[in-house]
Amino acid sequence: MKYPSQLLAEAVAEFTKLPGIGEKTALRLTLHLLRQESEAALRFSEAIKRLRLEIQYCVQCHNISDSPVCHICANPHRDSSTVCLVESPRDVIAIESTGVFRGVYHVLGGIISPINGIGPEQLNIQSLIQKAATGNIKEIIMALSPTLEGDTTVFYISKKLDGAPVTITTLSRGVSFGGELEYADETTLARSITSRLPYEKYLVKNHQQPL
Amino acid sequence: MKYPSQLLAEAVAEFTKLPGIGEKTALRLTLHLLRQESEAALRFSEAIKRLRLEIQYCVQCHNISDSPVCHICANPHRDSSTVCLVESPRDVIAIESTGVFRGVYHVLGGIISPINGIGPEQLNIQSLIQKAATGNIKEIIMALSPTLEGDTTVFYISKKLDGAPVTITTLSRGVSFGGELEYADETTLARSITSRLPYEKYLVKNHQQPL
Repeated sequence: MKYPSQLLAEAVAEFTKLPGIGEKTALRLTLHLLRQESEAALRFSEAIKRLRLEIQYCVQCHNISDSPVCHICANPHRDSSTVCLVESPRDVIAIESTGVFRGVYHVLGGIISPINGIGPEQLNIQSLIQKAATGNIKEIIMALSPTLEGDTTVFYISKKLDGAPVTITTLSRGVSFGGELEYADETTLARSITSRLPYEKYLVKNHQQPL
Repeated sequence: MKYPSQLLAEAVAEFTKLPGIGEKTALRLTLHLLRQESEAALRFSEAIKRLRLEIQYCVQCHNISDSPVCHICANPHRDSSTVCLVESPRDVIAIESTGVFRGVYHVLGGIISPINGIGPEQLNIQSLIQKAATGNIKEIIMALSPTLEGDTTVFYISKKLDGAPVTITTLSRGVSFGGELEYADETTLARSITSRLPYEKYLVKNHQQPL
């Protein structure tokens, strides 16, 4: 597409760099910003700038934060002996929105992926090992995505934690709520049979997490 | 959703104000910007800011421009006696990308829409009437959307142009290229029958616009 203005073309080009935004959508978003009061577009621009310049990462869990220690790690009501290991800040938001987890997090910042050139040294693994070595952690919940790379990362970290006085657990796998059995993939269905639960335990679990 | 940082929440909120962007997409875009080098996010922020502060509108056709007169109006090879009337800069980009129009444009800046509180006085209609009155314009092509509001606007403007020495034309209506007849709506199909073309003329028209 040819644009009537270089400024417009640049803004469209910046939008298309975002994931899932093609050129037509980028043009629509850009023209929308042009139609707004200039304060609206400047507020948008400023929010992005401040986000990138002022955001901090929690020194304890590496999550996004406005202060050196995030509000979860700083909360005395959270159980700091139970650590949930996640890939990214997005997973923290997802688990927090369930409202059932009262422990703290440790954000890896990615998963081991040789194809993308991400090795263990680029992830926040060393700080987790050190935390575990202090003896203040009772349990680490491995909440990484159930993919080949996620499983590899979990395996690597569990080996590194060998000998540390912690219990390692993973998220349970099984059929989703509201899903139909015939559409569940075979691996998930097989896992949900081999790790079946006594019905009383299922009732108790559901009670903890109101639906 | 609860966010671990106020800065993050603000950036997500700004993204959700854009059309077609929900909260999950906004979060994905925001976290993407956080993962980039800070230069990338600052370039994005700066492009939006400059767009809003420095963009100009052509004094002749009201299109987006980097200078007081846009590059189309300033181009001596364009036929300034043929004016294509469009709703927005987006339509100019769409028509320009076909490469068949060698005249100039006049951007209305909207269409008459009482429901949205847009009356004729908020649109660039007066300057079009003045242009037509000079006698320098031979033809005005009404290229507004074929909706009730678009047709109302065309009707209003054509009444205002009564007596001015210009020919008023509209875009032809008909079945789309590549479309199947059975899926064309009845009005379009009816119009394409009543305004049917001699086959030789159809061939010539297609020749002008290589597909």
